Amino acid sequence: MAHESRHMKWWGWGYEGAEFRAGHHPNFWPFAKSVLDIERDEFIRREWSLESIALPEACIDEPFLAKLRAGLAPRQITDDAKERVVHSYGKGFRDLFRLRQGIAEGAPDLIVYPESERDVCLTLRAAAERDIVLIPFGGGSNIAGCLERMDGKRMCVSLDMRRMRRVLGVDKRSFTAHIEAGVFGPDLEEQLKAHGMTLGHFPDSFLHSTLGGWIATRSAGMQSDKYGKIEDMVIAVRMVTPEGVLETRVVPKCSNGIDVKHLCIGSEGTLGVITAATMRVHALPESRQVRGYLFPEFEGGIEAMLDCVNRECTPAMVRLNDPDKTALSLAFRPPPSGFTKIAGSLFKTYLRAKGFAPPKACLMLIALEGGARHVSQRLQQAEAIYRKFGAVGLGAGAGKSFEATKYDFPHIRDFLLDRNVTTDVSETATVWSNIATLYQDTIAVLRAEISKSGVRPWTGCHISHTYPNGASLYFTFGFRQQRGRELEQYLQVKRAVQQSFIDHRATLSHHHAVGTEHLPWLAADISPVGVQAVSAIKQRLDPANIMNPGRLLPSSTPLEDWLKLDSSIISR
Amino acid sequence: MAHESRHMKWWGWGYEGAEFRAGHHPNFWPFAKSVLDIERDEFIRREWSLESIALPEACIDEPFLAKLRAGLAPRQITDDAKERVVHSYGKGFRDLFRLRQGIAEGAPDLIVYPESERDVCLTLRAAAERDIVLIPFGGGSNIAGCLERMDGKRMCVSLDMRRMRRVLGVDKRSFTAHIEAGVFGPDLEEQLKAHGMTLGHFPDSFLHSTLGGWIATRSAGMQSDKYGKIEDMVIAVRMVTPEGVLETRVVPKCSNGIDVKHLCIGSEGTLGVITAATMRVHALPESRQVRGYLFPEFEGGIEAMLDCVNRECTPAMVRLNDPDKTALSLAFRPPPSGFTKIAGSLFKTYLRAKGFAPPKACLMLIALEGGARHVSQRLQQAEAIYRKFGAVGLGAGAGKSFEATKYDFPHIRDFLLDRNVTTDVSETATVWSNIATLYQDTIAVLRAEISKSGVRPWTGCHISHTYPNGASLYFTFGFRQQRGRELEQYLQVKRAVQQSFIDHRATLSHHHAVGTEHLPWLAADISPVGVQAVSAIKQRLDPANIMNPGRLLPSSTPLEDWLKLDSSIISR
Repeated sequence: MAHESRHMKWWGWGYEGAEFRAGHHPNFWPFAKSVLDIERDEFIRREWSLESIALPEACIDEPFLAKLRAGLAPRQITDDAKERVVHSYGKGFRDLFRLRQGIAEGAPDLIVYPESERDVCLTLRAAAERDIVLIPFGGGSNIAGCLERMDGKRMCVSLDMRRMRRVLGVDKRSFTAHIEAGVFGPDLEEQLKAHGMTLGHFPDSFLHSTLGGWIATRSAGMQSDKYGKIEDMVIAVRMVTPEGVLETRVVPKCSNGIDVKHLCIGSEGTLGVITAATMRVHALPESRQVRGYLFPEFEGGIEAMLDCVNRECTPAMVRLNDPDKTALSLAFRPPPSGFTKIAGSLFKTYLRAKGFAPPKACLMLIALEGGARHVSQRLQQAEAIYRKFGAVGLGAGAGKSFEATKYDFPHIRDFLLDRNVTTDVSETATVWSNIATLYQDTIAVLRAEISKSGVRPWTGCHISHTYPNGASLYFTFGFRQQRGRELEQYLQVKRAVQQSFIDHRATLSHHHAVGTEHLPWLAADISPVGVQAVSAIKQRLDPANIMNPGRLLPSSTPLEDWLKLDSSIISR
Repeated sequence: MAHESRHMKWWGWGYEGAEFRAGHHPNFWPFAKSVLDIERDEFIRREWSLESIALPEACIDEPFLAKLRAGLAPRQITDDAKERVVHSYGKGFRDLFRLRQGIAEGAPDLIVYPESERDVCLTLRAAAERDIVLIPFGGGSNIAGCLERMDGKRMCVSLDMRRMRRVLGVDKRSFTAHIEAGVFGPDLEEQLKAHGMTLGHFPDSFLHSTLGGWIATRSAGMQSDKYGKIEDMVIAVRMVTPEGVLETRVVPKCSNGIDVKHLCIGSEGTLGVITAATMRVHALPESRQVRGYLFPEFEGGIEAMLDCVNRECTPAMVRLNDPDKTALSLAFRPPPSGFTKIAGSLFKTYLRAKGFAPPKACLMLIALEGGARHVSQRLQQAEAIYRKFGAVGLGAGAGKSFEATKYDFPHIRDFLLDRNVTTDVSETATVWSNIATLYQDTIAVLRAEISKSGVRPWTGCHISHTYPNGASLYFTFGFRQQRGRELEQYLQVKRAVQQSFIDHRATLSHHHAVGTEHLPWLAADISPVGVQAVSAIKQRLDPANIMNPGRLLPSSTPLEDWLKLDSSIISR
């Protein structure tokens, strides 16, 4: 199986060979240069070679290694240099920037590939005995800093779960599937398809993330409007902790005190290793439709989304881009040709005549899934609402274009990093009544903060993941790097946007986890007593603090620590 | 407001004056005598007088009382005898049986009525300083033993939350309401109605339970099929703990590590006092329909429920009675008269001709709520499915009869207790594929266990609260009491049914909480590591163990302790 053996490239997103190709999107770089105020192309891309990386020497505890060798096969243990680099970090801006600078301080000393829960138990036992740090590793796609080694003193092992990839059983009558946690998205869907089922979880990272990673970070898929977030899909879970296996029952709902299932969900590797889960699954949808619409303005699009929610006719996915994100999406599209080109320019004339001014128009993408009749009914209902708010349908073309490229967006960041441009995302969620204010104020904060370093800001936002009581706001931002100040520049902006979320009663993240990136705001988000509770669980289930230490427990002056941490990296 | 001042009668369910009246249900007692093998009426009901109760002397810590008096008004503090008796227990069989025997060992020494979160904080602080036990008290309707004083040595205070009853704010755009936790069901719905809203939570205890109680016990309302269980409705929560206020943000969803909201939900008063919550609310439904159906057999009824779930046309409420519960329901109905009587007997003849044999036929009750068109469409869809499984509609009469009496069932227990008959309920949940086996085996276990004490068993079950992956099974049982062995007799049966749930991979309770009744099975349900985690949270947030001690933490030999506990009471 592909996912068992292949890793993402260490210097960027995706497998080697998969990347953003400017030739396929000829409008994109001109657009980016224009909005980012870039005059000349500065291409710094080189052939990436492992030799450029200052890999710290592996610190190996021999008694620990002997224990592993006694219990595991040789194919399950490695300290190969490339493997160590690949397991150093996730794929956040800071992760990629550091690796591209040759910095791999986060590299683990050893990588272990468990093939069963027994292997996980054995490794945890040996690690606890010898005071070895363990970091559970799924697909390595996390962008919140969940995977970086924070404890430099003790030996550190990356526990790569990808070989635990089986669907162990499907209960077709109850629509549940019992699944090993290391399975990747495409592999899981392929196995479920053989039973006529789907999990319905398609995060942007789908190609490169695992069930266990989704559960440990409280992930959301693109179609969460229909299928829910991952926490809504977990029926039962198994997590190996240093104190034993935490296991919940396969029941639809219960009243058995504090729901310990929710201690595993979102635990970010700090309490143990999620080895398997029983998940809610669905019959494969008979029909799928993807469509695009243009709204004359953002506010009307938001009202249309809310109206759909209130009338219970929300599509499986709905994404409303603000004007700037809309401009980016249009620049990203392949160039039209022939008839499409003529039709496109006629359509533009038509839109202008109808009052769609380019700086205000907003693109909405929707997907619907289910029985053919259900899909067509819901599409009709939704379109009637969209029309009420002045939207114009873009036909199936916009949908096709989205489908073809929906997992490609992270490649843009690598392309821009090659050109000295920093881009990143921050996302949150809030109630409907607070969306407009949070949006406007956060965009203003972002633009002001980026401008402080004397470069032109680019910002965009889309609203997605709608719920009866609110939705998620997903901000994207980019700017030219200041040489030698790249990390500080980034941190200042990131800090400002996160602070804006918290100041506006929103959450530190809707689906990207806490990690190191959002840790300074955890106490403000879940209250200091909430942090106390989490810390108590951590200390009881992992008394030696061997599981992914340094996370979910902010220190007393977190913001200062956070900046200090990175200044030390910059100074090198 | 009524709920501020009135308590339920201490010897049974409901307010004084509300009770089961045999004259309105003339068939019931003959039915009960027949199925329970009772030859003569043995009526032991007397005028209940407080003087019959051996109320332990109140142990008052004077420095504590002085602190309270300094911070609270005199109307907020009482050690009145009747108040102490009313706050001794919930309304479980063991609770009522003991009080009727004059035993009130569980009585608190003092009752405090907070009127604000400040009052709660003040009381907790004073209690922590003086090592005083606090038991949060909502409506006092719990039947799992959540409210009994387990720690006899320290002074014990019942914290009656009923005066914190305000809806503090409604966000109509986001469909959320911020509500104080002490509000009772009817009062809450009345306040929300003024905003055109409903919470949609209608447990059997609706008249006598509070928002805080629902959250602390993970309650389910009759219409959970549409509105969800209480844990699905909580957007944010505030809980005052001895270590400070745990507070979560008003956001629809988030990824901020372990979801500490779920530490408050189901905490059963062991971590602190839930003072307020932001809840998901709904527009008042335009239309409501309640209907009854008769299925030729139980299995077909279950298939029909599952089919509705799979086709996403489940009513807001669906309850399928097994044949024995069906017979009980029919015996409970008011007698027909005039035309209804003639029509009824013609209908019976028709049913017999169609092959509906009385010992196998099963009654199903459903309720639908929402827009008028939605309700009528869904009713049509559901009825088409019911017909496929041979069901016959009983018209609106069955629905009306259910609506009129839906909160009255607990009164039957008092009526039977007056006649030396023990009745109780145990409920659980499991996945669809396991329902038939769990049902059959548990009924067999119940009948065998009851028979052991030489009396004729009566057992019944209904299936309700359907979910995509399973449903709840609600068992009711009754039997003649053996004089002098009433509690042991009860405990043996209760123990057997709970053990059957656990043996069959089900949960110890779907919506009645753990309390003392289900505590011996907690470790089997959530795993010993799960218990460890709960115990760690408890010790951190309530280091002096003043909050409702003795719960959620099973001792090492729980089953033996459980029996011992009650033998000691019996021996008195």
